[in-house]
Amino acid sequence: MTDVILTANQYGKAENRVVRVVRDTDRHEIVDLNVTSQLRGDFAAAHTEGDNSHVVATDTQKNTVFAFAKDGIASPETFLMRLADHFTGRFDWVTGGRWAAEQYGWSRINDHEHSFYRSSPETRTAVLVRDGDDTTVISGFHGLTVLKTTQSGFVGYPKDEYTTLQETEDRILATDIATRWRYNTTHVDFNAVYGSVKDILLTTFTQGYSKALQHTLYQMAEAVISEHDSIDEIKFSCPNKHHFTYDLSFCGLDNPNEVFYAADRPYGLIEVTVQRAGSETVAEAWMGIAGFC
Amino acid sequence: MTDVILTANQYGKAENRVVRVVRDTDRHEIVDLNVTSQLRGDFAAAHTEGDNSHVVATDTQKNTVFAFAKDGIASPETFLMRLADHFTGRFDWVTGGRWAAEQYGWSRINDHEHSFYRSSPETRTAVLVRDGDDTTVISGFHGLTVLKTTQSGFVGYPKDEYTTLQETEDRILATDIATRWRYNTTHVDFNAVYGSVKDILLTTFTQGYSKALQHTLYQMAEAVISEHDSIDEIKFSCPNKHHFTYDLSFCGLDNPNEVFYAADRPYGLIEVTVQRAGSETVAEAWMGIAGFC
Amino acid sequence: MTDVILTANQYGKAENRVVRVVRDTDRHEIVDLNVTSQLRGDFAAAHTEGDNSHVVATDTQKNTVFAFAKDGIASPETFLMRLADHFTGRFDWVTGGRWAAEQYGWSRINDHEHSFYRSSPETRTAVLVRDGDDTTVISGFHGLTVLKTTQSGFVGYPKDEYTTLQETEDRILATDIATRWRYNTTHVDFNAVYGSVKDILLTTFTQGYSKALQHTLYQMAEAVISEHDSIDEIKFSCPNKHHFTYDLSFCGLDNPNEVFYAADRPYGLIEVTVQRAGSETVAEAWMGIAGFC
Amino acid sequence: MTDVILTANQYGKAENRVVRVVRDTDRHEIVDLNVTSQLRGDFAAAHTEGDNSHVVATDTQKNTVFAFAKDGIASPETFLMRLADHFTGRFDWVTGGRWAAEQYGWSRINDHEHSFYRSSPETRTAVLVRDGDDTTVISGFHGLTVLKTTQSGFVGYPKDEYTTLQETEDRILATDIATRWRYNTTHVDFNAVYGSVKDILLTTFTQGYSKALQHTLYQMAEAVISEHDSIDEIKFSCPNKHHFTYDLSFCGLDNPNEVFYAADRPYGLIEVTVQRAGSETVAEAWMGIAGFC
Repeated sequence: MTDVILTANQYGKAENRVVRVVRDTDRHEIVDLNVTSQLRGDFAAAHTEGDNSHVVATDTQKNTVFAFAKDGIASPETFLMRLADHFTGRFDWVTGGRWAAEQYGWSRINDHEHSFYRSSPETRTAVLVRDGDDTTVISGFHGLTVLKTTQSGFVGYPKDEYTTLQETEDRILATDIATRWRYNTTHVDFNAVYGSVKDILLTTFTQGYSKALQHTLYQMAEAVISEHDSIDEIKFSCPNKHHFTYDLSFCGLDNPNEVFYAADRPYGLIEVTVQRAGSETVAEAWMGIAGFC
Repeated sequence: MTDVILTANQYGKAENRVVRVVRDTDRHEIVDLNVTSQLRGDFAAAHTEGDNSHVVATDTQKNTVFAFAKDGIASPETFLMRLADHFTGRFDWVTGGRWAAEQYGWSRINDHEHSFYRSSPETRTAVLVRDGDDTTVISGFHGLTVLKTTQSGFVGYPKDEYTTLQETEDRILATDIATRWRYNTTHVDFNAVYGSVKDILLTTFTQGYSKALQHTLYQMAEAVISEHDSIDEIKFSCPNKHHFTYDLSFCGLDNPNEVFYAADRPYGLIEVTVQRAGSETVAEAWMGIAGFC
Repeated sequence: MTDVILTANQYGKAENRVVRVVRDTDRHEIVDLNVTSQLRGDFAAAHTEGDNSHVVATDTQKNTVFAFAKDGIASPETFLMRLADHFTGRFDWVTGGRWAAEQYGWSRINDHEHSFYRSSPETRTAVLVRDGDDTTVISGFHGLTVLKTTQSGFVGYPKDEYTTLQETEDRILATDIATRWRYNTTHVDFNAVYGSVKDILLTTFTQGYSKALQHTLYQMAEAVISEHDSIDEIKFSCPNKHHFTYDLSFCGLDNPNEVFYAADRPYGLIEVTVQRAGSETVAEAWMGIAGFC
Repeated sequence: MTDVILTANQYGKAENRVVRVVRDTDRHEIVDLNVTSQLRGDFAAAHTEGDNSHVVATDTQKNTVFAFAKDGIASPETFLMRLADHFTGRFDWVTGGRWAAEQYGWSRINDHEHSFYRSSPETRTAVLVRDGDDTTVISGFHGLTVLKTTQSGFVGYPKDEYTTLQETEDRILATDIATRWRYNTTHVDFNAVYGSVKDILLTTFTQGYSKALQHTLYQMAEAVISEHDSIDEIKFSCPNKHHFTYDLSFCGLDNPNEVFYAADRPYGLIEVTVQRAGSETVAEAWMGIAGFC
């Protein structure tokens, strides 16, 4: 056999669906998470020899997730921090890892005390990467579809023999916001900042004339970093969801941007990173996240 | 060849994604539909002989859908009615058909005039079946997930050697509401009734103690038919989304309905039809709809 | 409250993922099913009163499915039959029900004795409906995508002001075969007939010139009923998966049916039923199956 | 506003569904790709100013993909190379980019000349990253589910108060193989190596006793790198698809690894990188790929 080496690796239990009900009073609360735990460290012998003496079972990681939920889940980020502290603290050879969560939003039905409906269109995400003494927290969301019916255009681009697109100064602009931002600290009110970032992104999207999705995303990014000292970097991976004006001339009808065909594929795809000037770069923490260049 | 006959058949263009923007004033409106058109009638020669002289092209049906959207879309049901009237009126051999739509809900971002986000968790549905002079309209929605953290139990069921389930008088009850209701008339304010039915279902779900999902769905159905004279029949196809109390005794913890594992499969599945006493039955109109017995 | 009545209803446990390994010799076998069990009968009190004394728990149905798998699974259809016999035989008030299964195909890796890969593109389906003494078995499959690069056209269709489609005598014809057929008996070698029907459908698809998908599906149906005396009825619900010739004239290139854009939505949708002449019709057994008119 | 900078970014047209038919003889061939083109370079003004003078329209990228398909598609990797050469060669400010493709496998129906069915369970993938003069090609596939009914166990792992898993020396081992490997050259017969790597992975999976999925994946990786000098690195992101022995003691039945419940979530997740000893590391090329640490 050729000489090979084990390099990056991690393992754990993925997609633990934990629902935590707080029922200390008649007015119940609910937290709904999908938690993934993955350990890093000295696991070489498991791969090369089948020696499992360092392999904290993924089943054990699952049990730990559910047991820790008993103490309450203040935010996905703080819950992941507890898991990271536990696994790296207990097992010498676990020097780091990656813990991730999705959170699903619920609202009360008619302000009822114990009845809820799943409400929020977006899925909130959190990733915590621990490497020795370093901890990186990346929060975000995806699945929030937004659309402007006007105040968007696309002109001034280069043309060659493959160019057939017509310039326009009035079109629909639509995208599914998928974003993640990196904190420069773990001392954050994660739920409050999450709400604020979502508000900033939505508000900025509505403002002004969009010269391209790139232009709009950059403004959204700039607004977030300006507002939040705790955030050093924000990324977007956003489709340009094309809404094509349907040509109705076959039956003699004009169509002044009233009837659109919403296309599935292909779609534009815009990926952008904006960073606080002078701040540190932490590329490794983004490894393994789809579609964030 | 054995003697065979062509029986039930229909064809058309499925999933036309039509977005209609109303921009008569600065305050734009948006209607977002997924429309399917299928024709029925004398199409035997197309199947048996490859004679397409009766086959209104599915591409033509698509063009018609988009052209008709130019006149506005008051509700999915009335839009389907226009399509049914058109195709059966224009082509002698088209004696009926099935038209269906999904509608996706959008809300304004901060009450903005032309910026929206896709908001509603549920997908609204409408089906219109035309057979000669008869028209049946079935409306509904799916994808609305609801959950009660208490006031639900399941006891008193029969036991045999395959029974391991323990009785409980306090559990989580959760389901995805998938429902369709049949109107006894086409003279309805479809948008208003839709909103009312959704409200009734949510409100009834919250009320009282649930002895089983069957028990709750029946109450929901009864409330809808009692409130709306225009509705003769309502069906549900609802999963019992199991939330299992996670046994934490391995680490010495008690778990009084606080930490749950939300399971994917298998799941309970409850399908119920409730009909206005004395009303007519129209089984054929329900053919082809998944999961509504 | 208005007077309402409970009509059609059924309930049970859906999507029990049963994998049965036969390991009597070193050459293991594997059967992989997704089983749904739903009971019908006298369950009115459960709905109207919350009286569960007739409600065989869905959890009990699940346990029964797994326990019955211990005796082996000769075919999905015979396995469903055993479940139907059991539940209707044991509980007086269970007068019928609906049992369904999906089967996933596995093949040996290099003819290995105990190593397999999931191989078949299609999902095999079986539905058994029991109503008192009557049993109807409907088998089928979905997810088998087929495509002809020539020998397909579409001409001779009616034109009106909404028609823009050009006639063609050479195009790609592509569809996902979704089919179900109804047996007139339960005394069948279900696995053998399944294999034969699949072969007949594929072979017929390749033959001759297709004047439309309707034309081809009818020929496929006719061939199946002619070959199999045990089958009285077959249905298709098949998309016309459009492959559009991409217009390359912008850069001076001709495109004689070489470069295609495979579209997602909208798509043609052709639904066809062909029945043995003189055979009985059993419409109720098809209720609740999506997309089969 | 706080001072921010644009860092990593790329944009283009995603998921161009190109089907290329070769019909030079009566025996047609078909290549079916899903192509994504994304450009990198000097695009700062588009983001910061809305100046699109450098923004080669995503629509132009789409047209280019389809036009280039006219010349034939020898392999996904070589097709991506042509796109990379074109865009970086034509536009000064395009200094690199990321091009990706999925390929879907088709087989002839009964060796027919122009009729095919979509056959292969796995999706083949290719990614080409260009950065100035450097080109990295990463190939792979996902969606190939494999399973061993015996010759797999898991013992010798550490235990603590959260551990409930029992050791076993006979269990089902099942996973969906998702793998990507990096070439150290672009002078490769990509189709031939693809076939060979797939064979090596399947064959190695069947061999010997698996002490854990980690153990098996490492052996699979080692075999690939040993066999192919052109490959310097291979990664896996593979679920441990749990098949739990169903406890049938409730009805007095023993279950010696015959009846299994195939669980959905949570699942084990094993991510492994194996590299040729002494070879170069190219971490940036892996950015944005989900689940490969």
